[in-house]
Amino acid sequence: MNALELEIKKAGFLIYLFMKIESIDFFYLSMPEVLDIGDGSQDALLVRIRAGGLEGWGECEASPLTSIASYVCPMSHSACKPLKYSVEGKSINSAEDIYRITAEVKENSPDLLQADHTLSGIDIALWDLLGKRLEQPVYKLLGYQRVYPKLPYASQLFGDTPEETFKKAKHTASKGFKAVKFGWGPFGKQGLEQDIAHLHAAREGIGKDAYLMIDAGTVWSEDHNEAALRLPALKEVNAYWLEEPFVNGALEAYKHLSEATPPVALAGGEGCNNFVQAQAMINHAGLRFIQIDAGRIGGITTAKKVADAASGKGITYVNHTFTSHLALSASLQPYAGIEKDLISEYPVELKMLAQEIGKEKIVPDSNGYIHVPEKPGLGITVDTASLQKYLVDVDIKLNGKQIYYTPQL
Amino acid sequence: MNALELEIKKAGFLIYLFMKIESIDFFYLSMPEVLDIGDGSQDALLVRIRAGGLEGWGECEASPLTSIASYVCPMSHSACKPLKYSVEGKSINSAEDIYRITAEVKENSPDLLQADHTLSGIDIALWDLLGKRLEQPVYKLLGYQRVYPKLPYASQLFGDTPEETFKKAKHTASKGFKAVKFGWGPFGKQGLEQDIAHLHAAREGIGKDAYLMIDAGTVWSEDHNEAALRLPALKEVNAYWLEEPFVNGALEAYKHLSEATPPVALAGGEGCNNFVQAQAMINHAGLRFIQIDAGRIGGITTAKKVADAASGKGITYVNHTFTSHLALSASLQPYAGIEKDLISEYPVELKMLAQEIGKEKIVPDSNGYIHVPEKPGLGITVDTASLQKYLVDVDIKLNGKQIYYTPQL
Repeated sequence: MNALELEIKKAGFLIYLFMKIESIDFFYLSMPEVLDIGDGSQDALLVRIRAGGLEGWGECEASPLTSIASYVCPMSHSACKPLKYSVEGKSINSAEDIYRITAEVKENSPDLLQADHTLSGIDIALWDLLGKRLEQPVYKLLGYQRVYPKLPYASQLFGDTPEETFKKAKHTASKGFKAVKFGWGPFGKQGLEQDIAHLHAAREGIGKDAYLMIDAGTVWSEDHNEAALRLPALKEVNAYWLEEPFVNGALEAYKHLSEATPPVALAGGEGCNNFVQAQAMINHAGLRFIQIDAGRIGGITTAKKVADAASGKGITYVNHTFTSHLALSASLQPYAGIEKDLISEYPVELKMLAQEIGKEKIVPDSNGYIHVPEKPGLGITVDTASLQKYLVDVDIKLNGKQIYYTPQL
Repeated sequence: MNALELEIKKAGFLIYLFMKIESIDFFYLSMPEVLDIGDGSQDALLVRIRAGGLEGWGECEASPLTSIASYVCPMSHSACKPLKYSVEGKSINSAEDIYRITAEVKENSPDLLQADHTLSGIDIALWDLLGKRLEQPVYKLLGYQRVYPKLPYASQLFGDTPEETFKKAKHTASKGFKAVKFGWGPFGKQGLEQDIAHLHAAREGIGKDAYLMIDAGTVWSEDHNEAALRLPALKEVNAYWLEEPFVNGALEAYKHLSEATPPVALAGGEGCNNFVQAQAMINHAGLRFIQIDAGRIGGITTAKKVADAASGKGITYVNHTFTSHLALSASLQPYAGIEKDLISEYPVELKMLAQEIGKEKIVPDSNGYIHVPEKPGLGITVDTASLQKYLVDVDIKLNGKQIYYTPQL
């Protein structure tokens, strides 16, 4: 190596040592047709962050256009700044840098409601980037020395009829899943008798030994009496939990139902978009399971904080994931090292878009367990070539001046 | 009147009787320069709803571009629909119609984080419209038979130095205000000694008899120990309340501080964007005052629900308002008929934009009290001619197709 080459190498090394965020790009992807069903894998908002010759990827579990607007909008006042204010050009060399960026978003954008959903994808991409830079899986950067297998539950919608629910249950059980969740669809909307029929159909379909989770999809809003009518049937079919009977944060309704009989364990929290909301659910809702979507709560940083808080209160942390395996990897990292938190949501009805996001898949092993990826970052390579066909070009102008245009994917 | 004229008149009457929403338009207004200060009157998002030859106006206390995006964005899935899905073309003939629209937004858009901020302006405009149609002030439609005067507190930022705070306090007292609030600015950011100096300067400036409120602007995040260091000084200057020491929803930190000594009454809640968040603050935060911004919490409908819940728990409801008198009227309606809830936030440092939004002003009477307008709806006429100069044209295209363009103001 001659002197010039040595200087170039040293300069490159210094650039690498002191990485700053060079670009943050959002990609709105959508299926050609989005159906009015509870399937969140029909569109996606990916975030790509580049620095020092590397790139990290994240995914917001959020309205793509609204989140992009929150990133580029003009400042309204000191507490309502666009996300870009807290992110662009910042250093990204250690976990502390990510914590600092999260804290700055909280300080600069508390009055921008969409901010936490947008931050989620950014935070996930930052962890992926940092993991690649430090050549470590994200969970190690979070402080976990070892990780534990998780038992995936096949997460899917109820059938339109109890017969269809039975068929879906049977089919899922035949694929080897030891835990199955049914949710949304007609549940709670066609009367008590029909709900009971769906519950029994689900149990019969999966067999008596599998875990059965039921997701009410907030259908009873805040009405704990209506929800309580389903408790006997839930007990009869040995439901492992009843999820989201009420809107997120309805502490009173949750608490009432948690004390009703027969007792059925409650799960909730996917709608939380910051730490204190999750903390309120942990402390005041009578939950047994707290479910966190890293793509909504502010990313891996905040999800990890919730996992720690839940452990401290003896509540089981569960990921909430209904999109890609990039999102699944991000959702697993925050609690990958907590052995007692065994259960993991695993979507099995993904649209092609969500299937094509990640080249690598997180699939159950021969014992039916899944494992957090061991590769640097999130361990999922985004398949940009396959995703071109789903890309939605976004063009936003204010007073004739373009403030956002979709970059090259 | 001939037969044809009679038919036309009957048809007009029927159209009037069965009004449907004909248009919902958003107007993003901004000062030429937006400063990085805690002054929320530097931009605005107005909502105009037309039906049956009438129009109602509302204001979102929210990021304008982000809120517009949430109104027009494509559906992501059944629980993440744009606001327009729940509003366009709907009937608007009674309070029940407004309650139904609010409920539909909750059902259709729980996963769209920005939704509540956008709904707020829509809900306010719907009440204004309905009031005009029924020729009643909004508070009557909410069920209040009579209303009570409110004691406005002059709401303003701390000075950059204690000397400046003193001067501002002196000036405000000279204008006859019996209650003054200082907030944001340097408070909590320059150390304990400086905060104490600001507190004493404020008290000396306004005199010993006026109410003095202090707004910490969430500066201590969740750190109740740091906040507690200010309690002795707050007590010394006889602060009526300490507002927002922590981020919205930080129930644990609020509760700790509410039990610390010397006791100082706590106020908070302006960041709540739905009923259950406010309910959690009422039930678990140790608050004495719950502060609700009708432009954020989902509008007048949800604000009224919070006012009722607060009354039931012996907590005082206070409006949060730092923008126009259209927003002020909307913020007063939900608790206009609750006699014991005497205090009202009254912004005194409005930028010209916010001053020019309403032709009518809500000004203190000779005794220093303000009154909710008695005219139909909100009683504030939007000065569209004056606002033209502040209008920001918004143009959003997806895949080359325009999905939003600012309409004629």
